[in-house]
Amino acid sequence: MPDDNLSAILYKTGDLRLENRPIPEPQDDQVQIRMAAVGICGSDVHYLVKGSIGDFVVKAPMILGHEAAGVVSKVGKNVTNLKVGDRVAIEPGVPCRYCDFCKTGRYNLCKTIFFCATPPDDGNLSRYYCHAADFCFKLPDHVSLEEGALLEPLSVGVQACRRAGVTLGSTVLICGAGPIGLVNLFVAKSMGAAVVIMTDIAENRLTKAKELGANFTVQIQPGQTAEDTAKVIEETLGQSPDITIECSGAESSIKLAILATRSGGVVTLVGLGPPEVKVPIVNAATREVDIRGVFRYANCYDAALALVASGKADVKKLITHNYKLEETLEAFETSRTGAGGAIKVMIHC
Amino acid sequence: MPDDNLSAILYKTGDLRLENRPIPEPQDDQVQIRMAAVGICGSDVHYLVKGSIGDFVVKAPMILGHEAAGVVSKVGKNVTNLKVGDRVAIEPGVPCRYCDFCKTGRYNLCKTIFFCATPPDDGNLSRYYCHAADFCFKLPDHVSLEEGALLEPLSVGVQACRRAGVTLGSTVLICGAGPIGLVNLFVAKSMGAAVVIMTDIAENRLTKAKELGANFTVQIQPGQTAEDTAKVIEETLGQSPDITIECSGAESSIKLAILATRSGGVVTLVGLGPPEVKVPIVNAATREVDIRGVFRYANCYDAALALVASGKADVKKLITHNYKLEETLEAFETSRTGAGGAIKVMIHC
Amino acid sequence: MPDDNLSAILYKTGDLRLENRPIPEPQDDQVQIRMAAVGICGSDVHYLVKGSIGDFVVKAPMILGHEAAGVVSKVGKNVTNLKVGDRVAIEPGVPCRYCDFCKTGRYNLCKTIFFCATPPDDGNLSRYYCHAADFCFKLPDHVSLEEGALLEPLSVGVQACRRAGVTLGSTVLICGAGPIGLVNLFVAKSMGAAVVIMTDIAENRLTKAKELGANFTVQIQPGQTAEDTAKVIEETLGQSPDITIECSGAESSIKLAILATRSGGVVTLVGLGPPEVKVPIVNAATREVDIRGVFRYANCYDAALALVASGKADVKKLITHNYKLEETLEAFETSRTGAGGAIKVMIHC
Amino acid sequence: MPDDNLSAILYKTGDLRLENRPIPEPQDDQVQIRMAAVGICGSDVHYLVKGSIGDFVVKAPMILGHEAAGVVSKVGKNVTNLKVGDRVAIEPGVPCRYCDFCKTGRYNLCKTIFFCATPPDDGNLSRYYCHAADFCFKLPDHVSLEEGALLEPLSVGVQACRRAGVTLGSTVLICGAGPIGLVNLFVAKSMGAAVVIMTDIAENRLTKAKELGANFTVQIQPGQTAEDTAKVIEETLGQSPDITIECSGAESSIKLAILATRSGGVVTLVGLGPPEVKVPIVNAATREVDIRGVFRYANCYDAALALVASGKADVKKLITHNYKLEETLEAFETSRTGAGGAIKVMIHC
Repeated sequence: MPDDNLSAILYKTGDLRLENRPIPEPQDDQVQIRMAAVGICGSDVHYLVKGSIGDFVVKAPMILGHEAAGVVSKVGKNVTNLKVGDRVAIEPGVPCRYCDFCKTGRYNLCKTIFFCATPPDDGNLSRYYCHAADFCFKLPDHVSLEEGALLEPLSVGVQACRRAGVTLGSTVLICGAGPIGLVNLFVAKSMGAAVVIMTDIAENRLTKAKELGANFTVQIQPGQTAEDTAKVIEETLGQSPDITIECSGAESSIKLAILATRSGGVVTLVGLGPPEVKVPIVNAATREVDIRGVFRYANCYDAALALVASGKADVKKLITHNYKLEETLEAFETSRTGAGGAIKVMIHC
Repeated sequence: MPDDNLSAILYKTGDLRLENRPIPEPQDDQVQIRMAAVGICGSDVHYLVKGSIGDFVVKAPMILGHEAAGVVSKVGKNVTNLKVGDRVAIEPGVPCRYCDFCKTGRYNLCKTIFFCATPPDDGNLSRYYCHAADFCFKLPDHVSLEEGALLEPLSVGVQACRRAGVTLGSTVLICGAGPIGLVNLFVAKSMGAAVVIMTDIAENRLTKAKELGANFTVQIQPGQTAEDTAKVIEETLGQSPDITIECSGAESSIKLAILATRSGGVVTLVGLGPPEVKVPIVNAATREVDIRGVFRYANCYDAALALVASGKADVKKLITHNYKLEETLEAFETSRTGAGGAIKVMIHC
Repeated sequence: MPDDNLSAILYKTGDLRLENRPIPEPQDDQVQIRMAAVGICGSDVHYLVKGSIGDFVVKAPMILGHEAAGVVSKVGKNVTNLKVGDRVAIEPGVPCRYCDFCKTGRYNLCKTIFFCATPPDDGNLSRYYCHAADFCFKLPDHVSLEEGALLEPLSVGVQACRRAGVTLGSTVLICGAGPIGLVNLFVAKSMGAAVVIMTDIAENRLTKAKELGANFTVQIQPGQTAEDTAKVIEETLGQSPDITIECSGAESSIKLAILATRSGGVVTLVGLGPPEVKVPIVNAATREVDIRGVFRYANCYDAALALVASGKADVKKLITHNYKLEETLEAFETSRTGAGGAIKVMIHC
Repeated sequence: MPDDNLSAILYKTGDLRLENRPIPEPQDDQVQIRMAAVGICGSDVHYLVKGSIGDFVVKAPMILGHEAAGVVSKVGKNVTNLKVGDRVAIEPGVPCRYCDFCKTGRYNLCKTIFFCATPPDDGNLSRYYCHAADFCFKLPDHVSLEEGALLEPLSVGVQACRRAGVTLGSTVLICGAGPIGLVNLFVAKSMGAAVVIMTDIAENRLTKAKELGANFTVQIQPGQTAEDTAKVIEETLGQSPDITIECSGAESSIKLAILATRSGGVVTLVGLGPPEVKVPIVNAATREVDIRGVFRYANCYDAALALVASGKADVKKLITHNYKLEETLEAFETSRTGAGGAIKVMIHC
């Protein structure tokens, strides 16, 4: 085992460095993990490029990375569910366990949650990292560590589809065919959606979507109005979708989501864009189209793991590029530019 | 019984006339009703003043009125639940009974629903009117016909509070203290809300709200930002409300509703304003504050009647003015101008 | 087209006759259907052998059959959703559309529902039959009429899994691997169940279950206690099932269902046995294991059709025997005795 | 402040002693409480008389008491929500915070929950007691410590009515008019129940029920069948109840609960009787009457406190007898025998 703890540390906007850090020791209810695979998320890139997301501002050096899996290398004295050598996926948020959100099962809304690579909390793009043992999920032998890392974005899809109420026979529109759109495709299908239709502006993403199981795709043309796109969707499906999962954050796409959704249906907002957008609110309200946000996930890792373990969500197909920890800067460059049709970039520690 | 059928007919914008119409005969599953009390709703006034609401345009003469109660004067041959002489409240929408919305219990979304005084369907501000018997609700002896008429706006409150998920211990913010805000106050309290706080710009409305049971009121000052009002509300309550019921339709109030509501909470939109508004969507989405519209009601009349019958919702207190059918034009003028602190204007047929 | 209307009429216990009946004409909202495929259900056989099910007693001659599909041969004047030549599956219950159950979306509980082959209502094991057009579901070209007939038992599975709350990641125990157990297997998997384990006393049924996708099977041994079987299930799964769908109706199996299910889980009762059974009620109550019955289905045909159309539920594999309408008595004999490993017997009209 | 820690210790069946124990020191997230009021619950008496409840057996000396309130006398170093002098109600169960039940908001099902006076966990019928600060609820000035103690049984009512789905307009049958039946009456009314009807065999309890707000009462006569009582209830109400809350645990009453409840309704089991009972399961299943157990409560104390603080639940009226800590044995004797029409016996520490 390596005896260094090389870590990818964001000092400030545009200033990402690889430095050695002390190897951390686990607390009583934690495990120490020899990190293996860490995917780069859009938020990691965003912190690198902009230095902040909303109210979260990088003020001190912070280790990046939160889509991660590794192998248990030490266990705290109270840990009973894991042992050294267990391969685990890491759910990156550890809530306070004491507030009302935690007690009512919505711990993703806990105001003092620790969350990897959300300032000021360090992430796990390192050689070694310690984490609460009950937020580590043991992988079966046939699930790879890379797949384990991808349980993180997949869990966003689980949270989104659960909040959307996807169920047997649902007709689902997913706006945006990037990584988050694609994990929602996997989850929606697995929850019983009869038909999934996806939109994007990029043709290659829609090709990928088709390949991964989308029944229909609609390429958004420059200048096309939301009303027109809604019409194309309705004509393609022969009906309006029951549910729309909006993964782009764009104002036009949120508008489309509302207009396209069937009366009594649900729009789920996963993508984040500008803080305020103009919304056809009377259309939504008088047709009782509910608008529901999604913030990370709670109690989703088990289901995400079951999806991967059963073969229903072939998340490996999202990985387009692989790098070593030492090549982290190059990996971020690829993820930032999307060079070579990058969808998901994976770093191996 | 009178042998005329004087009716309040809207010919076009600003052109409301009282004319005699033939007395209608009930179909097999209908009852004929000798109308007694009809409340004037904001939508009636809106049709009179503007000639349309959204896509609904008055193109041919239409009888106004849909908040109504009367006495059964004839029964169709298939009617078993009512008999001549029964005093009934009239649920003004009769859906198709065949579409998916009807079959799944959301008949308010039925696309071919008949709805009193929504063009092109005639209302019931007349001496006689025929209606599906199963959408007429027999009033107990101690519930007056005026109260029966007010089951209509009260049902809007029931639908809004149900969709909002008001339950035992809820802290509820109601934006707007007009008739719809006040019926929501009755309903929220009756469903177990621990605390209700109400906002308005008009002091007299807030005084009424206090009198009818609001725990707190906040008068919105001109130029006050939504952020400031949200802060006042949080300080007043010592917490953020779990649920906000927005009854004004104003952009600033919708913004307030989102900002003020607790993470994981619900904003219900009852008031209608401009078709598109600017909304702090990232704030709502990342705090999982759901936004739910309300369109009329389905399966709410029974509960509304129980509220009135038990004395929990003293809707009589909403009535500020009374007129005879012959004085309909004057009644509408009062309702339109709000003269004399008008909240609810009632017409007696 | 044939000009007779040969029909399978149950006169009384054990007295099933094939007779010609007048060809019925459709009412305004009905279609006339040239029947094509009718599956034999356990209830059909039960009426033949016992003359009654619970309070439903065959007092006058009744046409059998309710798992059915055919081709539209005439349309009533108000019908807009279908035309002559359309191939349709028939949802056999047509509710009153007026009662509270109908208005709230639970029309399966309607007290005056017409239901094929439930006394005194005639079924559709005939050449011609008329039915409400909105309870007929048009089949896509690639779905056969036999599959259309099997939407009926599949809809029972949809109702059961919906009431059970099967969702992404659920671990599901299905007690009984007959036709109803097997359709629940299809549906549970399609709704996202991670693991399905099935029990039966007959090995050949469990073999079929495995072939159709069950992850695990447990053969119940004579004299085995419910406690023991629950232990075997827990050991096999490494946990207790979240949900149990009981399809046998046997007292021992209901007991097993409760004991085996995880605290906070759900037992759904689909199978019917003796009217009263001894139940470990304190075990269920103190672990908050909910017990929910299933009566037919409401709003399930669309989802069942989508399951078959998408290939997720290969219901054809349930059909073990085929007969012509003229061979109805022989078909019932096969179904009754289970000769030749009969699971589902299909009659072609 | 007293410097002893007199405690009521159950050594074994029938052997309850008052002894001095060391005053406990709070852990970092705990508060030390100077106990003030402790109600005697049926379970306390049951342990005294029988030595066990189900699988919970008194094997070592155990302090009794779990319906309790007191005044904070010391705070652990991590406690921020309370300070010395705060008057608090004590939610007696402190879960592990790590298991799936805890993470999904159903911590009452946590398998390793600490629960006052459930063997082997000590209760709080003492002078001093330490408890997790986040499971202590600060009482407003106008809520007494006795009322604070009664939040415990009231929370059982909250859990029962929530699980039952009591909502606006519900018609509710409560079987049994003891303390638990009466708290359910308070809660059901506060959640919007239109009508509550209660049964019992004892006339004096029904008189109390009437006094506290029951709309109707039905005295069960010796030898009366469940079918007959169901008929009386239906005739009294003019309909079947939507929801039945069974608080007696008796086989005949569970049978009544099922038979009396409306199709599509819910029976909630709160009372515990013999481990196995004979249940009309086909009646429940074919009418989709759900059967749901209740085990203690989760996230109910806030709502219970709001009910008392607002005056909606006048729990003081349940207290019939008061004793000092030194008189504990006498207090238990009164509670056990029900002498003097005892409903709730309160001990003052």
